Amino acid sequence: MSLLVVGSVAFDTVKTADGSAEEVLGGSATYAAYAASFFTPTRIVSPVGEDMPEAYLEELHEHNIDVTGIRVVPGGKTLRWTGRYSDSFLDRTTEDIQLNVFADYDTTLPEEYLDSDYVFLANGAPPAQKAVLDQLPDRKAALLDTMNHWIEGDRDGVIEVLDRVKAVVVNDEEARLLTGEVNLLTAARLLAEMGPDIVVIKKGEHGAILFAEGRPRALHAWMTEDVNDPTGAGDCFGGALMGYIAGRGDWSLPTIKTGLLYGTVMASFCIEEFSIDGLRRVTMDDIEQRREELLGMIGWHE
Amino acid sequence: MSLLVVGSVAFDTVKTADGSAEEVLGGSATYAAYAASFFTPTRIVSPVGEDMPEAYLEELHEHNIDVTGIRVVPGGKTLRWTGRYSDSFLDRTTEDIQLNVFADYDTTLPEEYLDSDYVFLANGAPPAQKAVLDQLPDRKAALLDTMNHWIEGDRDGVIEVLDRVKAVVVNDEEARLLTGEVNLLTAARLLAEMGPDIVVIKKGEHGAILFAEGRPRALHAWMTEDVNDPTGAGDCFGGALMGYIAGRGDWSLPTIKTGLLYGTVMASFCIEEFSIDGLRRVTMDDIEQRREELLGMIGWHE
Repeated sequence: MSLLVVGSVAFDTVKTADGSAEEVLGGSATYAAYAASFFTPTRIVSPVGEDMPEAYLEELHEHNIDVTGIRVVPGGKTLRWTGRYSDSFLDRTTEDIQLNVFADYDTTLPEEYLDSDYVFLANGAPPAQKAVLDQLPDRKAALLDTMNHWIEGDRDGVIEVLDRVKAVVVNDEEARLLTGEVNLLTAARLLAEMGPDIVVIKKGEHGAILFAEGRPRALHAWMTEDVNDPTGAGDCFGGALMGYIAGRGDWSLPTIKTGLLYGTVMASFCIEEFSIDGLRRVTMDDIEQRREELLGMIGWHE
Repeated sequence: MSLLVVGSVAFDTVKTADGSAEEVLGGSATYAAYAASFFTPTRIVSPVGEDMPEAYLEELHEHNIDVTGIRVVPGGKTLRWTGRYSDSFLDRTTEDIQLNVFADYDTTLPEEYLDSDYVFLANGAPPAQKAVLDQLPDRKAALLDTMNHWIEGDRDGVIEVLDRVKAVVVNDEEARLLTGEVNLLTAARLLAEMGPDIVVIKKGEHGAILFAEGRPRALHAWMTEDVNDPTGAGDCFGGALMGYIAGRGDWSLPTIKTGLLYGTVMASFCIEEFSIDGLRRVTMDDIEQRREELLGMIGWHE
């Protein structure tokens, strides 16, 4: 079944200790949809400016992604983000962000998207996320991602969306900000009380916590020395998770758990290169092989 | 086979957001030996002052711990440590430390300890750790723990001991300080190059990394909302690991992996109470049950 991804398509400028990339393809929906599209036909909704090269959209289209919902705003400029990572990627600073066409955009879904069964609300404004949910009353499941910007600026909006989705994926900092609790298990439990059946808290290099059916589970990240740009890793994680679930057409805990493995794998490819380059060069064989290796890394049964 | 634990027996004063404990039984060797003694007969070497109540030593003795090597220094005072944890235990500050008899003590092993097969060098001065290794030339394996204090004050000494042990257990901060590398996998690889076959990097609530046979493995910590005092958790982790290995008399990767599960379990009991109270009330049944639950928490195979 198809997955709909709603979020940003952007130009990123990224600076690290070892290199930099200027105005490369980025954005939450780009990363999420590209990662998802390995597992299921994926649809994307996002506004871009006239400065978005047609070649980029064609590339997405050729990778199993329906780009009908990427609308070029006449006279508009695409979202731009500039970030800098500290040595070894422990911290990230946003040096500049220009929302441009992403500040306020038309979320009317294309007619052919209205039968989307699964939805990934990648990082974006709560009103836009609500507007998408309103148009998909028969959806099977929606996954919500958000970030500090919206939690601080539109807390009620975030909480309203939380109550309407089956799952939420946030990072540790966002989980703490949303719940006021530092203990991540307490935070996960409180997030589950806000609505979603499934709560996933991302912890970067430490992996993720899954809270479901009243129980916590932990999945460590792929351990690697080959980190070049963590931008988009969380989006790939959520995108691959939902892509796998949509591909299977099954919202059960075993499927969700396997989806989290694929999410971890796709995030691990993402961080190896700038932009989506880490995803561009992988095949399903690479993905399956790394999933096997990941299971070996985290397997602890005798 | 028996395990020898060398380290401190101390009085701790611990302050947390929810409570405090004054001059309670603590010290790296106390925690490590108590955790180890569930799995194998354990011997302890540490100096104490005349202020150490006989009842404490008797309690250890009754818990499968040989206290012949706990020597009362005439006229001496026992090591005292005072620490404060931030809200939710993210940070710890040492408010006061008085080494007292621990500053410089006689590490001559009792005659009956000289056949010890396994050794846990819990946190302590490198010269004392070396002196212990010198007396046990026929040992099967030694595990080294250390801390920032020694890495900063006697780096060469720490590196010399590293080269003589089969395994090292340090936390993430110590691993970074020792190697100058932030990436924990790089740090683990470099630590392995310094001598030990087995490198374990502890990450607190995120668990631990095991680096062995050129490969990394990750073990998540027990997830709990019931945290009252993390003091000694790392010592319990290392102590139970070595206690289990000594009990099995087997230095193989499967045994080490299972030992790390027990280390995780004993650390999880430790943090539930001040001092060793969390260990005092558990039985082998409790330990086995939590080990099963831990495997469920981290199990990801379909």
